[in-house]
Amino acid sequence: MSLKLNTKYLSEYINPDEIEGIRPQAESAVSALHNKTGLGSDFLGWVNLPTDYDKEEFARIKASAEKIRKNSEVLIVIGIGGSYLGARAVIELLRSPLYNNLSKDTPDIYYVGNSINPTYLSEIISICQDRDFSVNVISKSGTTTEPALAFRIFKKMIEERYGKEEAKNRIFATTDKARGTLKNLADSEGYETFVIPDDVGGRFSVLTAVGLLPIAVAGCDIDALMRGAQMAQADFGADFENNDCYKYAAIRNILYRKGKSVEMMISYNPSFVMMSEWYKQLFGESEGKDNKGIFPASAIFSTDLHSMGQYIQDGARIMFETVVDIKEVKQDIFLEPDAENLDGLNFLANQNMSVVNRKAFEGTVLAHTEGGVPNIILELDRVDEENIGYMIYFFEKACAVSGYMLGVNPFNQPGVESYKSNMFALLGKPGYEGAKEALEAKLGS
Amino acid sequence: MSLKLNTKYLSEYINPDEIEGIRPQAESAVSALHNKTGLGSDFLGWVNLPTDYDKEEFARIKASAEKIRKNSEVLIVIGIGGSYLGARAVIELLRSPLYNNLSKDTPDIYYVGNSINPTYLSEIISICQDRDFSVNVISKSGTTTEPALAFRIFKKMIEERYGKEEAKNRIFATTDKARGTLKNLADSEGYETFVIPDDVGGRFSVLTAVGLLPIAVAGCDIDALMRGAQMAQADFGADFENNDCYKYAAIRNILYRKGKSVEMMISYNPSFVMMSEWYKQLFGESEGKDNKGIFPASAIFSTDLHSMGQYIQDGARIMFETVVDIKEVKQDIFLEPDAENLDGLNFLANQNMSVVNRKAFEGTVLAHTEGGVPNIILELDRVDEENIGYMIYFFEKACAVSGYMLGVNPFNQPGVESYKSNMFALLGKPGYEGAKEALEAKLGS
Repeated sequence: MSLKLNTKYLSEYINPDEIEGIRPQAESAVSALHNKTGLGSDFLGWVNLPTDYDKEEFARIKASAEKIRKNSEVLIVIGIGGSYLGARAVIELLRSPLYNNLSKDTPDIYYVGNSINPTYLSEIISICQDRDFSVNVISKSGTTTEPALAFRIFKKMIEERYGKEEAKNRIFATTDKARGTLKNLADSEGYETFVIPDDVGGRFSVLTAVGLLPIAVAGCDIDALMRGAQMAQADFGADFENNDCYKYAAIRNILYRKGKSVEMMISYNPSFVMMSEWYKQLFGESEGKDNKGIFPASAIFSTDLHSMGQYIQDGARIMFETVVDIKEVKQDIFLEPDAENLDGLNFLANQNMSVVNRKAFEGTVLAHTEGGVPNIILELDRVDEENIGYMIYFFEKACAVSGYMLGVNPFNQPGVESYKSNMFALLGKPGYEGAKEALEAKLGS
Repeated sequence: MSLKLNTKYLSEYINPDEIEGIRPQAESAVSALHNKTGLGSDFLGWVNLPTDYDKEEFARIKASAEKIRKNSEVLIVIGIGGSYLGARAVIELLRSPLYNNLSKDTPDIYYVGNSINPTYLSEIISICQDRDFSVNVISKSGTTTEPALAFRIFKKMIEERYGKEEAKNRIFATTDKARGTLKNLADSEGYETFVIPDDVGGRFSVLTAVGLLPIAVAGCDIDALMRGAQMAQADFGADFENNDCYKYAAIRNILYRKGKSVEMMISYNPSFVMMSEWYKQLFGESEGKDNKGIFPASAIFSTDLHSMGQYIQDGARIMFETVVDIKEVKQDIFLEPDAENLDGLNFLANQNMSVVNRKAFEGTVLAHTEGGVPNIILELDRVDEENIGYMIYFFEKACAVSGYMLGVNPFNQPGVESYKSNMFALLGKPGYEGAKEALEAKLGS
C-alpha cells in the first residue's frame, strides 16, 4: 500500500529552488498542526484518529452493520455535506457507482436529507415502499434543516410500517456524544447511537462513525480502512523531504501563487466521481475563505476529455491538474482481435483494456503539460480499503497543511451560515424574524 | 412555457451603460451567426434544426423507440461526449437521476463507450447478463476509441445471445449519413441507421437522432421537446432588447472581462446534475480555446452549499453563478406539524416542501450576491419536455453568441486531438508510429 507523489511533469512549471524556498512555510504549518498552535486547533481530532478511536464503539458499528445487512434491503443514510459525502465516496469507489444496480448480498444505500427538493425525496420514499429498510440519521445537532426534515418523514414511515418498538432496531443515530436535539431524541426513543466527536469537523469525519457505519453496511472492511489510515498517519509524520503529503501541500501553494486558481482532481476510474466531490468539500470548505483559496473542480477521464478536454488543453491557463493514478484495476477485459477489423481497432487487441486506459493517461499528461497545465500525479497502488484509508488521511493532512500555508483557518466554515440565516429569516424561524422585512425588500417580492 | 432572464441581482455588478456598451458586439455576433459569416459557419445546422429536420427519420426514431421498449429491459447507449451527455441530461432531468432504480414501464438505460475503464464496463455487461437488451451505438466515424471498443464487445454479446439475424432488430446505429466505418458496417449488417448531420457538432446534437432515440426510449415526448425548441427558435430571434438569450451572452462576457473566470451553473433540483454536465461541455468546449474562456463548473443546492458553499460565499472572488430557477415542482410533499416539535422544525410545517426550497434559493441568492458573487437568474416554468427543449435551444444559441463575442470559433475543438494523437502513438496505431519514441522518452519509462 502506498500513495506516492510524482512531480516529473511539473519540471517546466516549478524549479527546485521554489520547493526549497517554500519549505520553511510548510514546516511552520506542520509545526502549528502538530503543536496545536494554529487557527482552529480545537478541531484536530482527525490527526490521531486512526490510532486513537473508541474501540468499543467500533465494535458496535460492525455489529449494527451486520444487523442492518440481515434485516434490511435498503439503508437510508440521512445527512448533508460531510455527513454523507465521505461514506458515499468510499462506497462508490470500493464497490461501484452502480452499487444499487448490481446484484449483491448487501443492502441498497440511498442518501437523503442532503436536499430540500421534494421530488427527489418522494422517489426515495417510493423505493422503500415494498422493501425492508433501516435509517442512519447523521447530524451533530439534529436541527440542520435538510436532514432534520428528512428524518421527520422517515421516522414516521418506519414507525407506521414497523411500530415504535421495532423502530428501535431500525433507526441508528450518529450525533453528539452528550447533547442536542438528535441525541436527546435518540436516548428517549432508545435508538443505538454513535458519536460525532467534538474535535472532528464534518469534512474530516469519514473515518468516524459518520462514515464507518454506512461503509460497513456496504460490505467494506472498515478494519482495513482504519489500518490504511494508521499507516498514513505514521508515514506522513516524516520530515518534509520524505513526506509526499507536505510536498503536495507546498506545490499547491506554489502553483496558486503563480496564478493557478483552479485545481482539477482527475481520475481515469468512473468510480472516483464521489471521491472527487469529497475532495471538493474538504479543500473548498477548508481553503475557500477570506477571499482566497484554490477553486476545486474535478473530471473523469477519458470521459470528460470529450467535454472539458478542449478547455483544459487550450482554454484560459488558470488551472493545474492533480491526477490520482490508480495502478491496478479491479476487473480487466482482454481485447480480442476482430477478423474483419472494420473499425481499425486491432492495433489495440491482444492486451488488456487497462493498458489502453494507461496509455490514455500517459498521452493526456503529456498533452496537457505541453498545453500549459501543470500536472501533479498521485500514484495509488489499487482500490482497496487499505489504500483508500491511506489516501483519505493523505488528503486530510495535506489540506490542513495547505490551508495553514495559505494563511486561513482550515477548520471553520463561517460562510455556510450566511444562506442559512437568510433562509431562516425568510421562513420566519423563531429568533430570526428581525431580518425578514429587509430581506424581502431586497427580493422585491 | 418560458425561460426568462432575471438581472435583478446583478445591479451591484453591472451598470446599464455596460449592457448598452457591449450591445453592438452582441449584435455583431448575432449577425455573424445568422448570416453565416463567422468562424465555424459550416456547423450551424443546429440553428434551424427545430423547424428544419427530417420528419421521416423522426417517425422512424419513434417507431424504433417503441420497438426497443417492447423487446428490451435494458438499452445500452454507446457514445462519448456529445453522443451521450445530451440524452442522459434530458432523461435524468425529465424522468429522474434514479431512473434505473425506479419501477417504470420503460427500459433501464446505461451509458457505455464513454470510458476505457474495464471495471465499469464489466459491471454494465453483468447487468445485461440475464436481461433482454438493445444497443444504440452513436459515433460519426465509428473509429473513436472509447465507443468503438465498447461496440465491439456489445455487438459480439448481442450476436452470441440472439444470433446475427435478431441482432438486426436490436442494434441501432446513429452515424454519418453516407460514409465512415460505422455507416458501412451498419449498412452491410442491415442495422437501422439514423443520421448525425454534417453541420451539427456533437455538443449541439441533442435534438438530432443522437439524443432523440434514447430520450424517446425513456418514454419522453420528443414531439413536445422539439416544439419547445421551435418556440425558442422563434423567441430568440428577437432584437437584443427583447432577447434574453443575447443578454445572457452579453452579461457573461461583461463579467468575464471583469475577472470573473468561473461560471457555476446552479440548480435546486438534484435531477439537474447531468444537464449541468451537458452545459459544461457546451460552453467549455465552445469557448475554452486560444488561452481564453470562462471555466464552467456546477453545483446542486442546497446540497452543495454544505460542501462548496463556503468557497462561493467567501473564497477567491473569481466567479459568478447562473441559477436555473425552476418555478414548479413535479411532486411536492406537504410538511405536517409534529406534536412534540423536538427538532424545532414546526416553523416549516403546514406548507409544501417546495416553499422551503424556494426560500433556500432566495436566501442564498441574497447571501452570495452580498458576498461578492454576481448571480444571473434564469427562470424556467417547470420541468417538462417543452420547457427543456426551449432551455436547450436557449443555451445553444447563447453559447454561440457568447463565443463569437469572446472572439473564438465556438464550433471547433482542436484541443481534443492532442491527447488522442499522443495516445495513438503510444499504442502504436498505424500512421502514428513516428511520435512514439519521443513521447516514451518524455515519459521516461
